[in-house]
Amino acid sequence: MSALGVAVIGHGFMGRAHSAAWRNAGAAFGLPHYRQQVLVGRSADAVAAAAAAWGWQESATDWRAVLARDDIQIVDICTPGWAHAEIAIAALRAGKHVIVEKPLANSVDEAEQMVEVAAAAARRGVFSMVGFNYRRVPAIALARELIAAGRLGTVRQVRASYLQDWLADDNAPMSWRLRAETAGSGALGDIASHAVDLVQFVLTEQVMEASGALRTFVPQRPGGAGGAEEVTVDDAVWANLRLSGGASASIEASRIATGRKNSLHLEIYGSRGALRFDLERLNELEFFDAMDPLAEQGFRRILVTEPEHPYLKAWWPQGHILGWEHSFSHQVRDFLDCIDQGRAPSPSFAEGLQVQRVLGAIAESSDRNGIRIAV
Amino acid sequence: MSALGVAVIGHGFMGRAHSAAWRNAGAAFGLPHYRQQVLVGRSADAVAAAAAAWGWQESATDWRAVLARDDIQIVDICTPGWAHAEIAIAALRAGKHVIVEKPLANSVDEAEQMVEVAAAAARRGVFSMVGFNYRRVPAIALARELIAAGRLGTVRQVRASYLQDWLADDNAPMSWRLRAETAGSGALGDIASHAVDLVQFVLTEQVMEASGALRTFVPQRPGGAGGAEEVTVDDAVWANLRLSGGASASIEASRIATGRKNSLHLEIYGSRGALRFDLERLNELEFFDAMDPLAEQGFRRILVTEPEHPYLKAWWPQGHILGWEHSFSHQVRDFLDCIDQGRAPSPSFAEGLQVQRVLGAIAESSDRNGIRIAV
Amino acid sequence: MSALGVAVIGHGFMGRAHSAAWRNAGAAFGLPHYRQQVLVGRSADAVAAAAAAWGWQESATDWRAVLARDDIQIVDICTPGWAHAEIAIAALRAGKHVIVEKPLANSVDEAEQMVEVAAAAARRGVFSMVGFNYRRVPAIALARELIAAGRLGTVRQVRASYLQDWLADDNAPMSWRLRAETAGSGALGDIASHAVDLVQFVLTEQVMEASGALRTFVPQRPGGAGGAEEVTVDDAVWANLRLSGGASASIEASRIATGRKNSLHLEIYGSRGALRFDLERLNELEFFDAMDPLAEQGFRRILVTEPEHPYLKAWWPQGHILGWEHSFSHQVRDFLDCIDQGRAPSPSFAEGLQVQRVLGAIAESSDRNGIRIAV
Amino acid sequence: MSALGVAVIGHGFMGRAHSAAWRNAGAAFGLPHYRQQVLVGRSADAVAAAAAAWGWQESATDWRAVLARDDIQIVDICTPGWAHAEIAIAALRAGKHVIVEKPLANSVDEAEQMVEVAAAAARRGVFSMVGFNYRRVPAIALARELIAAGRLGTVRQVRASYLQDWLADDNAPMSWRLRAETAGSGALGDIASHAVDLVQFVLTEQVMEASGALRTFVPQRPGGAGGAEEVTVDDAVWANLRLSGGASASIEASRIATGRKNSLHLEIYGSRGALRFDLERLNELEFFDAMDPLAEQGFRRILVTEPEHPYLKAWWPQGHILGWEHSFSHQVRDFLDCIDQGRAPSPSFAEGLQVQRVLGAIAESSDRNGIRIAV
Repeated sequence: MSALGVAVIGHGFMGRAHSAAWRNAGAAFGLPHYRQQVLVGRSADAVAAAAAAWGWQESATDWRAVLARDDIQIVDICTPGWAHAEIAIAALRAGKHVIVEKPLANSVDEAEQMVEVAAAAARRGVFSMVGFNYRRVPAIALARELIAAGRLGTVRQVRASYLQDWLADDNAPMSWRLRAETAGSGALGDIASHAVDLVQFVLTEQVMEASGALRTFVPQRPGGAGGAEEVTVDDAVWANLRLSGGASASIEASRIATGRKNSLHLEIYGSRGALRFDLERLNELEFFDAMDPLAEQGFRRILVTEPEHPYLKAWWPQGHILGWEHSFSHQVRDFLDCIDQGRAPSPSFAEGLQVQRVLGAIAESSDRNGIRIAV
Repeated sequence: MSALGVAVIGHGFMGRAHSAAWRNAGAAFGLPHYRQQVLVGRSADAVAAAAAAWGWQESATDWRAVLARDDIQIVDICTPGWAHAEIAIAALRAGKHVIVEKPLANSVDEAEQMVEVAAAAARRGVFSMVGFNYRRVPAIALARELIAAGRLGTVRQVRASYLQDWLADDNAPMSWRLRAETAGSGALGDIASHAVDLVQFVLTEQVMEASGALRTFVPQRPGGAGGAEEVTVDDAVWANLRLSGGASASIEASRIATGRKNSLHLEIYGSRGALRFDLERLNELEFFDAMDPLAEQGFRRILVTEPEHPYLKAWWPQGHILGWEHSFSHQVRDFLDCIDQGRAPSPSFAEGLQVQRVLGAIAESSDRNGIRIAV
Repeated sequence: MSALGVAVIGHGFMGRAHSAAWRNAGAAFGLPHYRQQVLVGRSADAVAAAAAAWGWQESATDWRAVLARDDIQIVDICTPGWAHAEIAIAALRAGKHVIVEKPLANSVDEAEQMVEVAAAAARRGVFSMVGFNYRRVPAIALARELIAAGRLGTVRQVRASYLQDWLADDNAPMSWRLRAETAGSGALGDIASHAVDLVQFVLTEQVMEASGALRTFVPQRPGGAGGAEEVTVDDAVWANLRLSGGASASIEASRIATGRKNSLHLEIYGSRGALRFDLERLNELEFFDAMDPLAEQGFRRILVTEPEHPYLKAWWPQGHILGWEHSFSHQVRDFLDCIDQGRAPSPSFAEGLQVQRVLGAIAESSDRNGIRIAV
Repeated sequence: MSALGVAVIGHGFMGRAHSAAWRNAGAAFGLPHYRQQVLVGRSADAVAAAAAAWGWQESATDWRAVLARDDIQIVDICTPGWAHAEIAIAALRAGKHVIVEKPLANSVDEAEQMVEVAAAAARRGVFSMVGFNYRRVPAIALARELIAAGRLGTVRQVRASYLQDWLADDNAPMSWRLRAETAGSGALGDIASHAVDLVQFVLTEQVMEASGALRTFVPQRPGGAGGAEEVTVDDAVWANLRLSGGASASIEASRIATGRKNSLHLEIYGSRGALRFDLERLNELEFFDAMDPLAEQGFRRILVTEPEHPYLKAWWPQGHILGWEHSFSHQVRDFLDCIDQGRAPSPSFAEGLQVQRVLGAIAESSDRNGIRIAV
């Protein structure tokens, strides 16, 4: 099998993280059958410098030209959300396997179109995936395994939160992320989306009903020209979800939670056990086994760095912790494995669309006085 | 000043906790001007044994007779909630100062009547208080001080939860606490009430609007006769609150959160700092000061055992931790101080009634599809 | 059986802690067969006030007269160490059961004499105990149970430390605790003694060999008259111990460990499991079970507040934590149980003497260039 | 400036970690002026496969031939310790800059020779470094900065430990790491060496005196042929050190500490503050500032992921944690910076030798009944 040529489109924060993944996944997992071929961006100089530093063989500025190349089999889209649909659809039609960084798209309409095109492509063996990378954190994968194995019994109550604080300061400047027309929403789409996806993933269940509230605490921020500009997205969001298996989940996401840097936090309570996870300590999973002898029960801190743990055999000896970016290498591994084996990767575009529908229901509930809405 | 005679009515869990407080508050705070006079209960033998063991000079079975005595100045009511109103009103009318264990009453009607009688009594210098003892945990008192001093700036986001697990097992037996007619509600009145009170207390603000949901996960439980009985109260409750100062608060309370034993948890995020507290580690308060130099910011774990901390001068040297029951001794101290100085103690019956109104709004919202309700 | 009359001698910090224990043990454990009779001190007014506040029926200034009374059966000695021997020996000879707060005595000579008198008394059914109260912390008692049950396999490595910081400030004033002639030693006798006792207690083993070092970091401190005074005891101590069962233990104790308030810390590593404890979180015990499935191993935080845990049935429902002072109530319970059943309580004077011998070996090693010394 | 050609010699665990560093340092820090040229190993097939997977342009089996090449300017030695001296000396003499993974050598003799050759090379602008990578953990670098800035005042007491458990099981097999002739020592050289280096680095002080003890708990282990083989190195080591600035440090290292996976732990107590670090949570540093207001003092958990923190500007936004391997990328960055600027990198071979002398003193003390030995 000749090596698959990879193109990453976009060289911002996510382009850089995905580049690191492509640069390292092969070394970790012994997947030499791909080439880090081309990094694509709009500014020729900047993308050339990034390509050189990040391990790409070349750079380019015209993504359409890249899609036309025969030596490119995989297109990994890291542009802002408004460009996802156009590039992804073109790439799938060009027969390229596609990864799209989350969110799948900025609107449900676009997302539905992408799902349709992806389904058609899949019938031709051309695969696609949306980049909810936190599914690939080993502790999260272990959590899902424990739940699937029944170690928690019936899951009843889930508490999820995603707290950051980079907007806690009233003087944090205005940006495209704070305008509804460019970002779609604020904490809702940016980070609550991860929480919603993880809850569904870890439980292997789907949200059936949602209610919620969105709030903006700092309505104006310093704009580029010195004057104040209107913030038109939410700073924080609260949601209550009902899941297909009967559990209730609460979600709280905020970008004004002073002191929380990147705290994606899960607590899952079942009839036989419980789990706790925090992304700021992503190498750890806490597990409470209610089947232990009563006097010995307690939340145990599993350091998820053993060869027996998901993804870990590829890395270092026990106790040598992984970083945030490793989740992207794992994503590359899983994606390539699927292509290799002719299987559809997950999360599919359809899964990405479903998460957006949940987010939509939360926003609608917020607008409609908090009522519960079926998803 | 001759010593104030104290009567405690009820000798269940709360009667025992309050007895310990009366037995120890004087030793800690140098308040010898009261007498642990009489413990009152319905079963003569049981209450006599309890009185002897718990430091009371005598026991009695007729609370009305006790109210008629001249040597009793303080009546501390630890009966189930349905008996609160009758005893408290009689005691206040008899000129006794009154403590009522929370909840103030089982119905808003009763509570309103109690507030009225208490107001009239206060005009005659006869005082009353409702027993939200967690206000008297030193770390909570410190949290309130820090917020009042502006160390958190504008408080925006509050996360409160009260998680227990004694009903996580499907086979935990039926009891009066699980029937609406005797208990009023489940997790809502039992533990969410504490969370609501604390949020208001720590912020010195009031809830203006509430929405919420109640759920029962285990609808039937083994009854006394062996058959299954219907559970008619909630196992868990979720609420979103809007506070008078503009903050949003989420509340989650559950008695089926496997592995959580008595976790009353608060997180408070302001524009200049944040706080975190958990009742399972009640001697600690975490404080994040966003005014610290950037490279040195972090949640600091304050071990609240210094003489400089609220209530602590009365106890042991630094690092010698207090237990759960100390909050009741602090309650006795604060109550006696108020009586001594002719000041109305807090939380007043009116404050207890206001908490019940918030709980009522949450329950109503739950019944009305989750809509937001003004309090 | 008529109630046993109790006298506590001394009303400083320890007299107050022991008084609280006598005031509360009966209520917790249903031990009404004793009377809190008399508190003894040198200053008539001060001891009378303390006695009134702390629940004693009377006060006295002449301990010899108290020993002569027929209505006193138990003498609990809380004076400074230099007075222990004289009072304890007189009390035992007078047929009183005796508790002596640790350290047993200020010299090995005195301690040996006390052991002899105690042995003779025991033959007449008169019992004695030394007050290593931390043995009665429930988490410590649970640790011992787990080890005795083989849950740790062969214990090999023990790390014990006792860190405080009340002498970290160079300007902390001179006191009797900092002079060799009154205190005997510094961190060694004051706090390392607790660590040594606990290691032996938890392992049910004895120290066979010791080496160590003592250091004084602040050689002079402000005296009463304003001038500087010489500190003649250690600020910190390090020791390596070999135990009878083959384990190695390290001990580190310090009163200049900035930020540590009362951190008596244990880590115990065996062939099949491990334990971790810290007195600043005394309601918790961490247990690592190497027999768990590999992917699920981790230190589990046991909240030691279940009725199934040692001493806990007497207190509150699960999750309602105990304080530092409860260990003294447990000590009273265990002591009274032994007297009731005609059993010798533990730790005996002989055990107290043995701990002092270990401390002596550490100090000798420190003087002799660190060599290992048989105990 | 033309790119520096890099050769890594050895493709075991360390060769792999160093390869990852060379693969990623440029992307993080914008250091494109080097080439990942050649990976050297003894088995042609294995090293070719590793080279291909790990980003090397080529592989080789003859390190002498590699040293002779003009396109190689940097040699990074990751072989077992017994081969360090020969290769490093040859490389320096060939004018190559050299990194040697720790320990510098297996004997002090060899190390002394290396230091001499390195000194001569440095005079010609050819630089060398020993790979104590943990100095490059951001939290450790921050700790050193805080101490250098006087935030701890006078440092008095240091507690360092390095605990692992991969030999806790009696049936863990025999290997070269457990034979004195191949490994030199056990926990002493393997992991206590890191602790010794870090203590000196963080304090910017040197060890002046040492005492210690070494122990082997499992004297025989299953050998390759099925029979038991003698273990001739230590399982655990304890040391007491006196530092040039007056502090006392305790060191404890173990490979049988059940449940500890890679716990390199530091506690540093000074007159004005304290620090705490654990490698299992390497993105965190705890700092206690005794200059904070008394009621607000506490160990604060600094999440060392801010752009203001050492090395962090190169990576991800705040709260996105780094892994263990990042320390090696930082090592590459610092090494290249020094070469770029014509400065000698640190830790030098001389520093590596000094650490070995401290280890030697500890081992000698262990043999000589624990006496203190000047370094």
